[in-house]
Amino acid sequence: MSIKDIDLAAINTIRFLSADAIEKANSGHPGLPMGAAPMGYVLWNKILNHNPGNPDWQNRDRFVLSAGHGSMLLYSLLHLTGYETPSLEDIKQFRQWGSKTPGHPENTVIPGVEVTTGPLGQGFANAVGLACAERHMAALFNKPDFSIVDHYTYCLVGDGCLMEGISNEAASLAGHLGLGRLIVLYDDNKISIDGATDLSFTENVTGRFEALGWQVLEVNAGDTDLAAIEAALNTAKATTDKPTLIRVHTTIGYGAPKKQGTSGCHGSPLGADELAATRKALNWTFGPFEVPSEVRVHMEQAKADGAQKENDWNALLDAYSAKYPEDAALYKRHISDEMPPGWADTLPTYTPDDKPAATRGQSGLVLNELARHFKGLFGGSADLAPSNQTLIKSRGDFQKNSYENQNFRFGVREHAMGAICNGIALHRSGLIPYCATFLVFADYMRNAVRMSALSEAGVLYIFTHDSVAVGEDGPTHQPVEHVASLRLIPNLSVIRPADGNEVSGAYKIAVATRNRPTALILTRQNLPQLAGTSVDAVAKGGYVLRAAEGAADMILIGTGSEVHLCVAAAEKLAEEGIQAQVVSLPSWDLFEAQSSEYKESVLPKAVAKRLAVEAGSHFGWGRYVGAEGDVISNDEFGHSGPGDICMQNRGYTVENIISRAKSLLNK
Amino acid sequence: MSIKDIDLAAINTIRFLSADAIEKANSGHPGLPMGAAPMGYVLWNKILNHNPGNPDWQNRDRFVLSAGHGSMLLYSLLHLTGYETPSLEDIKQFRQWGSKTPGHPENTVIPGVEVTTGPLGQGFANAVGLACAERHMAALFNKPDFSIVDHYTYCLVGDGCLMEGISNEAASLAGHLGLGRLIVLYDDNKISIDGATDLSFTENVTGRFEALGWQVLEVNAGDTDLAAIEAALNTAKATTDKPTLIRVHTTIGYGAPKKQGTSGCHGSPLGADELAATRKALNWTFGPFEVPSEVRVHMEQAKADGAQKENDWNALLDAYSAKYPEDAALYKRHISDEMPPGWADTLPTYTPDDKPAATRGQSGLVLNELARHFKGLFGGSADLAPSNQTLIKSRGDFQKNSYENQNFRFGVREHAMGAICNGIALHRSGLIPYCATFLVFADYMRNAVRMSALSEAGVLYIFTHDSVAVGEDGPTHQPVEHVASLRLIPNLSVIRPADGNEVSGAYKIAVATRNRPTALILTRQNLPQLAGTSVDAVAKGGYVLRAAEGAADMILIGTGSEVHLCVAAAEKLAEEGIQAQVVSLPSWDLFEAQSSEYKESVLPKAVAKRLAVEAGSHFGWGRYVGAEGDVISNDEFGHSGPGDICMQNRGYTVENIISRAKSLLNK
Repeated sequence: MSIKDIDLAAINTIRFLSADAIEKANSGHPGLPMGAAPMGYVLWNKILNHNPGNPDWQNRDRFVLSAGHGSMLLYSLLHLTGYETPSLEDIKQFRQWGSKTPGHPENTVIPGVEVTTGPLGQGFANAVGLACAERHMAALFNKPDFSIVDHYTYCLVGDGCLMEGISNEAASLAGHLGLGRLIVLYDDNKISIDGATDLSFTENVTGRFEALGWQVLEVNAGDTDLAAIEAALNTAKATTDKPTLIRVHTTIGYGAPKKQGTSGCHGSPLGADELAATRKALNWTFGPFEVPSEVRVHMEQAKADGAQKENDWNALLDAYSAKYPEDAALYKRHISDEMPPGWADTLPTYTPDDKPAATRGQSGLVLNELARHFKGLFGGSADLAPSNQTLIKSRGDFQKNSYENQNFRFGVREHAMGAICNGIALHRSGLIPYCATFLVFADYMRNAVRMSALSEAGVLYIFTHDSVAVGEDGPTHQPVEHVASLRLIPNLSVIRPADGNEVSGAYKIAVATRNRPTALILTRQNLPQLAGTSVDAVAKGGYVLRAAEGAADMILIGTGSEVHLCVAAAEKLAEEGIQAQVVSLPSWDLFEAQSSEYKESVLPKAVAKRLAVEAGSHFGWGRYVGAEGDVISNDEFGHSGPGDICMQNRGYTVENIISRAKSLLNK
Repeated sequence: MSIKDIDLAAINTIRFLSADAIEKANSGHPGLPMGAAPMGYVLWNKILNHNPGNPDWQNRDRFVLSAGHGSMLLYSLLHLTGYETPSLEDIKQFRQWGSKTPGHPENTVIPGVEVTTGPLGQGFANAVGLACAERHMAALFNKPDFSIVDHYTYCLVGDGCLMEGISNEAASLAGHLGLGRLIVLYDDNKISIDGATDLSFTENVTGRFEALGWQVLEVNAGDTDLAAIEAALNTAKATTDKPTLIRVHTTIGYGAPKKQGTSGCHGSPLGADELAATRKALNWTFGPFEVPSEVRVHMEQAKADGAQKENDWNALLDAYSAKYPEDAALYKRHISDEMPPGWADTLPTYTPDDKPAATRGQSGLVLNELARHFKGLFGGSADLAPSNQTLIKSRGDFQKNSYENQNFRFGVREHAMGAICNGIALHRSGLIPYCATFLVFADYMRNAVRMSALSEAGVLYIFTHDSVAVGEDGPTHQPVEHVASLRLIPNLSVIRPADGNEVSGAYKIAVATRNRPTALILTRQNLPQLAGTSVDAVAKGGYVLRAAEGAADMILIGTGSEVHLCVAAAEKLAEEGIQAQVVSLPSWDLFEAQSSEYKESVLPKAVAKRLAVEAGSHFGWGRYVGAEGDVISNDEFGHSGPGDICMQNRGYTVENIISRAKSLLNK
């Protein structure tokens, strides 16, 4: 076949690469790649600034496939524009164990995939985060005569993304912040899994986004009108004061004679007959996985173009470095994730003579101290800044006209907050995102936290008000199961410090861990500063806070606000001749990473009488207390009442610890 | 003081009751009650159909305080209109342990509180659920000449509620469904905890809601213009084809000279001086907790009016019963939550000769069977109906012009879906709400699930695709920690059935449990029908599925899709002379509720060698396997690949169970 219309041929190549891979895998979503191939092609061929030879080029445009089920669209584009992965062989291994082409795009598997997507709406909010990171870095480092940070963020969403609440949260913020370099392509195909979107989604999307402060453009013939797609993208790029949503009306599964325009091609392979019929309908004479050589040449031009773009940018950066050497040095430190020298030397430390304090307050002190060292500390709270103590006092608010500032006002939007922080982290420009809410509302953002862990995004989650000690706000605001539920998430570090030293220690390890998120679990109420706590011990997850005199009769294990109760109980038990070793165990995951020798030194097997004390669920404690142990836990919903009463009524008192310890010893 | 303006006096009574209670508690949120007192008063005094003498009157209007932190507004209104609780003494006990006036309204504590609120946005979605329940019941039971179900649902929201994504999801659905009897008062006071809403919330709310299909009305002088509030409410009531949002512009903390209009009165008591100054500013000469007798008489008129309204309705119901005795009998059965006779007798049962099947498919069969018995089965999926198998084939879609139908198309809106189902359950009209998504996306709706449990709402959560056996969709879609994380939620029943009989058994107990939510954990993949499973055994949570011949050497414990592997392993072990008892443990919480004798019979202490097998986190299994036990668990994120490969690579094979069992025996 000779290629007359290279654009159309390229688009059909994307369509068939996608459909062929899905057919071979006997699993996947052909509808989106076939329908969105024209917009994907126009964006990647004519608009996107990227360098296939270096997926990590810092000033590349970012592209997020929020509708991650359409992964074959992205894999086809990466392959055809000349990225090393996925190869054609990789594409033939679509959705197979260990392949470079998983069912949904994973940033940890394929260079060129910016963020991991699949759970709908997450990618949209990630894109908002990427766009925030770009504006922030630009404001920090650009000069009137140098724009070294000036890329766009593109995102492709489907109906599902726009139905999810997280996308409305993120869109409202994006409009508020006037993120002019954020451009979202909406694959408006009127079909979701259940059928036509008129089953449940008949709102006026254009009106909603305009109300949220967006420019909305429309492409009526999105299956064929490439010029209109390109024009809309250029209009969007030229609009600098607000984000743009481009509604591209498409036909899902375009080209499949029987299935196009139906939910039948959303989430299942076309089937051999329909795929053959599609080839016929689109006059496509190439075989499975065949890429016409003209298309390959045409699309791979992106490699040379991209190399040139990066070279030009490098030259710009050199000139910038010559004129602004200090800024350039800082910028380079940023993008290499290098820690500033001495950053951890000035973390606050405490002695028992220091006043009792809430760990949330100590967290605020640490954040403010860290901000002196890290220009890139960037975050805030979901409208609980005074409660979460997250304001950096030396800095202003990150707003439309002050992108250089670091205090991010997320509003009451926990889910988008988490996903935006994922985008900031995965911008990989040295920014350290943090975000905060009450621990109980970690539930509102749980999938975003999971996505941090899965995509290795080093977000700091600051969860305060961490037990029934929250008090009067009652059971809706009192976490019970939340610490345990966070410990369940793979690759999430969870740290519940016991006092000021442990707070500093928690930050020391969390900030240094850039490829893994950390959840800091902090109190509302004041806690005493303990003897024996230390900044560095936290990195081990657990340590002996109070050794027994001679052989220990038992071990008391506490975390966070219960550690000081354990210490007090141990002292009283000692007066009665019972020797209890007290272990502070702020982080199970960090402790598990220690050597078995170290773990044995903290929790010696010989001491089987163990009592754990934690104001939360008993789940998982069996690992540490063993068969002969016991746990003072809280497995029921709380009650409204003063916090100290709530704690007492749940058994978090020195007296109860002593009593339970004695029962244990007498068993 | 003589009362000249009784309306104003009543409003100020609400303001000061609220501020006084918060002052006494030294904790709470005075800003909302003081600012929203006028709209609260107009609604409750002039509009709301309710009967303070019978908070459970079935056809009452429902009122939801979505901004639950303003609880003192609701408590004041309940008290002043003559509800038995809260008494003045109860109000003086605001936020104290064991009081009837917790920090946030709890439906399980005070009659007249329809739903538990506090986590922002939940109440908005609950209200949508209540409004759906009303329309559905009306469509099922009303006749051209009888409207026995015809109440309104009112909701009061703040800025925070409208920032949360859940409210946008719910609002989009409410607009789509044209819920004309849903009226939301928006306390538009421009202040949230962080400060002015222009920090993060500058969208055009009116435009957004209009785009979502709502009527939006505006009251400019919401602090004083009672006539405008009343007129807007009446306009809203008269609009039958779409829900209404009434933007009421108010001053937070109205009357407090220094703090009104600032975030300073959002979440803290006014303080004695400011409270005194407020009394002066509003010319309020009454003491703390003093209710002017004229105000009491005026407000308590609601009692007599309400009794009359209920009497009139009872007469209507009598006339309806006379003319439509069968419908009336069914209606009365509905509202008394009575189970239809024989409903559980026709649940599907299976023998090992029956074909392997996915438990999600068997769940679909049960739902369809139950629908023959329960007219009030009402629910659906978040756009995964074909995957979750939730469609009731004999019924149509619940839509704007077909409210009588039972299949609810939630769209991709998991969080609102859960909260809407809470509203349907707490309508307490005998409807049995169910909702479904992939198990991994339980994370999107986690707070709604928690609120079901806390508010004792008997929602059925149908979570399918329950392990890495999901396969090709990869780690974003493969649950790992989710079963464990659901088991953590107090008062949530979690059941993971092993085959068709256990699916029927799971529904049998879940449907009969109307004051507690149940999460059903179901497979995507086919499972064999096992010998020894039974419908009734599930109610005990766990049971011996395969007894050992003679004394057991060990116990194999499985749940769901791993049970058949345990059985097969036990059979092979028996060939080698190793006697393994196999326990199917579909529900930990149901098992824990059994007698210790029963539990001992299933898991005899004498058999310490125990191997649990579950395709999910190991957390919590220590309770059942003990110190000498082991767990074949999956604690890491999954990978994209065929489901059977994913399971094999994680050790879910008969061979691995045998190998681990032998290791255990040789330890």
